[in-house]
Amino acid sequence: MRVLGVDPGLTRCGFAVVEGTAGRRLLALEYGVVRTSPEADIGTRLVRVADHLGAQIERFRPDVVAVERVFSQHNVRTVMGTAQASAVAILAAARLGLPVALHTPSEVKAAVTGSGTAGKAQVAAMVTRVLGLAAAPKPADAADALALAICHVWRGSAQARLAAAAAAARAGAAVPR
Amino acid sequence: MRVLGVDPGLTRCGFAVVEGTAGRRLLALEYGVVRTSPEADIGTRLVRVADHLGAQIERFRPDVVAVERVFSQHNVRTVMGTAQASAVAILAAARLGLPVALHTPSEVKAAVTGSGTAGKAQVAAMVTRVLGLAAAPKPADAADALALAICHVWRGSAQARLAAAAAAARAGAAVPR
Repeated sequence: MRVLGVDPGLTRCGFAVVEGTAGRRLLALEYGVVRTSPEADIGTRLVRVADHLGAQIERFRPDVVAVERVFSQHNVRTVMGTAQASAVAILAAARLGLPVALHTPSEVKAAVTGSGTAGKAQVAAMVTRVLGLAAAPKPADAADALALAICHVWRGSAQARLAAAAAAARAGAAVPR
Repeated sequence: MRVLGVDPGLTRCGFAVVEGTAGRRLLALEYGVVRTSPEADIGTRLVRVADHLGAQIERFRPDVVAVERVFSQHNVRTVMGTAQASAVAILAAARLGLPVALHTPSEVKAAVTGSGTAGKAQVAAMVTRVLGLAAAPKPADAADALALAICHVWRGSAQARLAAAAAAARAGAAVPR
């Protein structure tokens, strides 16, 4: 299973491509951050995030796109940009017929460290170990995207099968443009 | 000036196309609501909103797309869907090189009724009068989208000129795919 993980954000959007199956060694194929300037207009910023994630999807052809589920109750100042970045990530995946899975931050932490309240450093340490990286991935948004992708692989295939069925139904029902 | 107004929402997204210039009679060319089921997956819902708005843009070729600015502090329960719907509206406009303008709900109310705290009924009554409609537009989301488009025309052309310049700069800087 190949997963594109997306830690959505407008100023910094983390992304990571992880390949593997639960119970076997996982491989990080790519990870990084797409940045947009807070001074650019919102349309320019969303197009940049959408194009960058679309290019990753075309390059790596993931089986599924895992996006962090955004909650409105935390980080109110930046939550609108986060929600908007998540929307273009989800749209990019759905446009290409890929299933989308959402995982909450605590689900990701619990999957990777065993604790849903683990700190950033602990998550980064486990990501480094699990993927056999020489050093902790930076910046933090890229590490979070890697953790999200690992979480998706490890949470098993039941959710992925459901999402794939929904995507197939959607592709069949889509009106050609 | 022809304006596509968008009152973003995931369950009901209002849209309206208004043509005219400040100081002259305004004409509503189209208005309505695109609905998506809360039971559908988020990718399907965002694709539907994006496709519907994209089709309106292709049909009516507006000069500008005016979107209601979303705030996180009100209506916390639905704000994430609203932010996501606004993102796909902005992305649809920016992808086609159209300038995007954001207006707050109180700016829209003040432009249309003279009061930034006017109620829904008052806004709908003024929209009906200004556009010379036989009856108040329904549902409320369509009326809000009409009010947004009227607001954009009436707030004058200074903001539109700035947005057009930004869009032109963006189109020139865009990497072809």
